[in-house]
Amino acid sequence: MSTGIFSLEQLEQFTLQVFRAIGCPEEDAVTATRVLLNADLRGIDSHGIARLSGYVRLWDAKRVNATPRVKVIHETPSTAVVDGDSGLGLVVAPKAMQLAIDKAKNAGTGWVSVQHSNHYGIAAAHAMMALEEDMIGISMTNASALVAPTFSTERLLGTNPICVAIPAGAEPAFVADLATTTAANGKLEILQRKNEAAPLGWIQDAQGNPTTDAHALKQGGALLPLGGDREHGSHKGYALGAIVDIFSAVLSGANYGPWVPPFPAYVPMPSDMPGKGIGHFFGAMRIDAFRKAADFKKDMDQWIRRFREAKTVPGSPAVVIPGDPEREMDLIRRKDGIPLLPAVVEDLRSVGQRFSIPL
Amino acid sequence: MSTGIFSLEQLEQFTLQVFRAIGCPEEDAVTATRVLLNADLRGIDSHGIARLSGYVRLWDAKRVNATPRVKVIHETPSTAVVDGDSGLGLVVAPKAMQLAIDKAKNAGTGWVSVQHSNHYGIAAAHAMMALEEDMIGISMTNASALVAPTFSTERLLGTNPICVAIPAGAEPAFVADLATTTAANGKLEILQRKNEAAPLGWIQDAQGNPTTDAHALKQGGALLPLGGDREHGSHKGYALGAIVDIFSAVLSGANYGPWVPPFPAYVPMPSDMPGKGIGHFFGAMRIDAFRKAADFKKDMDQWIRRFREAKTVPGSPAVVIPGDPEREMDLIRRKDGIPLLPAVVEDLRSVGQRFSIPL
Repeated sequence: MSTGIFSLEQLEQFTLQVFRAIGCPEEDAVTATRVLLNADLRGIDSHGIARLSGYVRLWDAKRVNATPRVKVIHETPSTAVVDGDSGLGLVVAPKAMQLAIDKAKNAGTGWVSVQHSNHYGIAAAHAMMALEEDMIGISMTNASALVAPTFSTERLLGTNPICVAIPAGAEPAFVADLATTTAANGKLEILQRKNEAAPLGWIQDAQGNPTTDAHALKQGGALLPLGGDREHGSHKGYALGAIVDIFSAVLSGANYGPWVPPFPAYVPMPSDMPGKGIGHFFGAMRIDAFRKAADFKKDMDQWIRRFREAKTVPGSPAVVIPGDPEREMDLIRRKDGIPLLPAVVEDLRSVGQRFSIPL
Repeated sequence: MSTGIFSLEQLEQFTLQVFRAIGCPEEDAVTATRVLLNADLRGIDSHGIARLSGYVRLWDAKRVNATPRVKVIHETPSTAVVDGDSGLGLVVAPKAMQLAIDKAKNAGTGWVSVQHSNHYGIAAAHAMMALEEDMIGISMTNASALVAPTFSTERLLGTNPICVAIPAGAEPAFVADLATTTAANGKLEILQRKNEAAPLGWIQDAQGNPTTDAHALKQGGALLPLGGDREHGSHKGYALGAIVDIFSAVLSGANYGPWVPPFPAYVPMPSDMPGKGIGHFFGAMRIDAFRKAADFKKDMDQWIRRFREAKTVPGSPAVVIPGDPEREMDLIRRKDGIPLLPAVVEDLRSVGQRFSIPL
């Protein structure tokens, strides 16, 4: 692992062996590898292989169970609650999403809330499983608190993403995957590395004042809900993040708000935790439970084309259909390889040395 | 109707008689009255009785059918598509929401997409029907295009609101009802009446430039998606508005994007409309399809209290639980009456004269 660009196959082999090394059964190791590298392929570098060593540290700290017995603890024809048994979210989430899809086959829709899980990679990796079945897929998760609700100086919500994946006909699928904050934490980390200022509206300092200091988050500050401030609708971003938290954790019996377990294994667990692990929420809606799939897809194609062809401000890019940039990145990286920062390569190398895994 | 403050009962009697006068069956007139005035009670004045004459003009223009045969045209255990037969959204929407609730009783959840409807008042009026059944209620609708997607100069989306209503135990319910724009059109109308400037990030002019001119919308400008601009996440607000549009209209066979019928009856209908009327989407999820309702409510109470007690910036208000301001307004207005602007009173008076309805 000396150069900065790696083929998907190289990273797959490496990641698979690391998950095997911590004791994941073969099938789970394959799933976790697919989900984790899906982030790198789609250009969401903050959630991909750069986090592999973090997952290993969670396993070291006994916060991740490599051989979970994932089970359904409650269900109806269209719903279920899944206990992830402290497994990797990368493994628990696809099982729960598959259950939502299976329920949709019979009941028209399927909705699964998950307790006792861990971080699940990118939301889109799971929601997009529905596309192959001519279903709409929905995926959301809570995460440890980094976001201050409007008016607050306290961090009470995670960046709590929502993904909705909708099939089309001749056009590629519509895939919106969005953190319920103004900017994702990964974008802030890029500015921190470059020592550049953040736009006003992304973060506040420890006293709750707007700031452009990209390092403020590490000094008691907080990310801001989508909208940025009250005048620009931050109460709406806060409400969306809250809905994700409640669907993922209050509905399943996981931890919510400030009690969600942290990703870095060196951060102590919150005290007085009210639930179990991290929570997710998945949905699958069969298109033909509403309308003939062919009719729906014809209208989706027209929707997508009308928006793509919209008049734009001179000099600005075309209107983007959600999912287009990530799909284009996926094509490029499958062909040209996946670039990794030197710090990430070094980090992976030390994980590899520990388990005697060569590239 | 001479003074500016009216009791709920006065406005109910008046509104009920107007709906009867245009030919609504008694049950529908009662429902439409309840839904319409729910907006005034909750302080969403732009969507309440101020719109009554607008609904009458849509009926005059034969765009609203006062005696619709609302029917289910497709269904599965957990889904349905409803044809509103061009009825008042105020009447069609509660029937569709009730169907979602009935399906949830059997299948755990119910999801209903609606075609061929009209404007349905406030989203919360419908979602909150689920609360009495210990269910989570979801309500969304598309609307005629006023919003430009990120980078576009064209209006392609309505303000497309989403409401999620979640029951709690000792605490009042969590009710988030949000337009997927930075600011609701109603707030802009207030600034227009006062000839005041709008904050940057609410609207753009006809060329797609940011502007503070509150009148820009009437001169070819557009409302902006939640986020305001690309740097502050407007592509997320655009994606949310798009999801509402697709769930409400592409899933049901209604009109979407720039083809959604306008509310003002004097505005011509779009040409080449791909579907029927306006679209809505409703969901109901039975709490005990996931978890014992008592356990869920205990955690919701703890969630609500933790957020309400959060530390805040000195001098700023407490953290707001979504739904609190509207519930407090509802209590005040039931007791002290509902204030109406002189222009609204005058407008109602002329509607009353036409049908010989005294206050």
